[in-house]
Amino acid sequence: MSQKAFQDYYTEDFSHCYGCGRLNEHGLQIKSYWDSDESVAKFLPNKHHISVPGFVYGGLIASLIDCHCVGTAAAAIYKTQDRSMDSKPALKFVTASLKVDYIAPTPLGTKLEIRGKIVEIKGKKIVVDAKVIADNKTCATGNVVVVQMPDSMKIK
Amino acid sequence: MSQKAFQDYYTEDFSHCYGCGRLNEHGLQIKSYWDSDESVAKFLPNKHHISVPGFVYGGLIASLIDCHCVGTAAAAIYKTQDRSMDSKPALKFVTASLKVDYIAPTPLGTKLEIRGKIVEIKGKKIVVDAKVIADNKTCATGNVVVVQMPDSMKIK
Repeated sequence: MSQKAFQDYYTEDFSHCYGCGRLNEHGLQIKSYWDSDESVAKFLPNKHHISVPGFVYGGLIASLIDCHCVGTAAAAIYKTQDRSMDSKPALKFVTASLKVDYIAPTPLGTKLEIRGKIVEIKGKKIVVDAKVIADNKTCATGNVVVVQMPDSMKIK
Repeated sequence: MSQKAFQDYYTEDFSHCYGCGRLNEHGLQIKSYWDSDESVAKFLPNKHHISVPGFVYGGLIASLIDCHCVGTAAAAIYKTQDRSMDSKPALKFVTASLKVDYIAPTPLGTKLEIRGKIVEIKGKKIVVDAKVIADNKTCATGNVVVVQMPDSMKIK
């Protein structure tokens, strides 16, 4: 995809996240994009992202869902305000809660597709549903409640 | 602690997990123990396990809760059967669902304590509650449904 990922619009101080920060060289560097009214990210797990031989680690799946949904929530809020994601003031979001249902074992060695869909926007709270697809099969679903970053996390 | 961790009893083919496998050199190698009727694991996040500067990545917190609760569920089942965790046949468990509520930002740079408590054992399903404590403050809570490993994940 040639378009810029949601996460590539994040301000520098917000780009160290292990899941999706472009400046975290040890991190997963998840990249999310709009695909019509849904969002999509693709990710090829590393060999060490294993649970039991042949299958992906559930904590990685939770991480993919988490960052993809936070990115989707951020992008959706900018969209509702009819603003570009690099316009000021920057809006920052964090996860309030994360629920993952592991429906089927996720095979290791194939690129995963993580799809997100906005369920609700209510003030500073955004609810996003997600699914993780491997080889055209949904292996996990997620539901993430995203909120604007609290003052206690504000970067000085 | 001098006692052996739950995960150190896992069979070799079940010890590659990114979260808690003793044989995964790139993994987190989470170690869980009984502490009276609760279970406990301690984990010092790495500097790159960051969300925003000063705070721990939520996907790591989800991973810690996940593996700690699966380990706790396994240990509890062996306990109810009055068997050592290295007795045969080996019982293997996986996560069916994972819920994490992020209550407060989790500071980076301090050792985290993950505590687990069995809520319910019903047939092959075990429900475990967890909390993640940093500097004596609960920063996240978790609820994990653990099930016996399905045949589709069986290692040949």
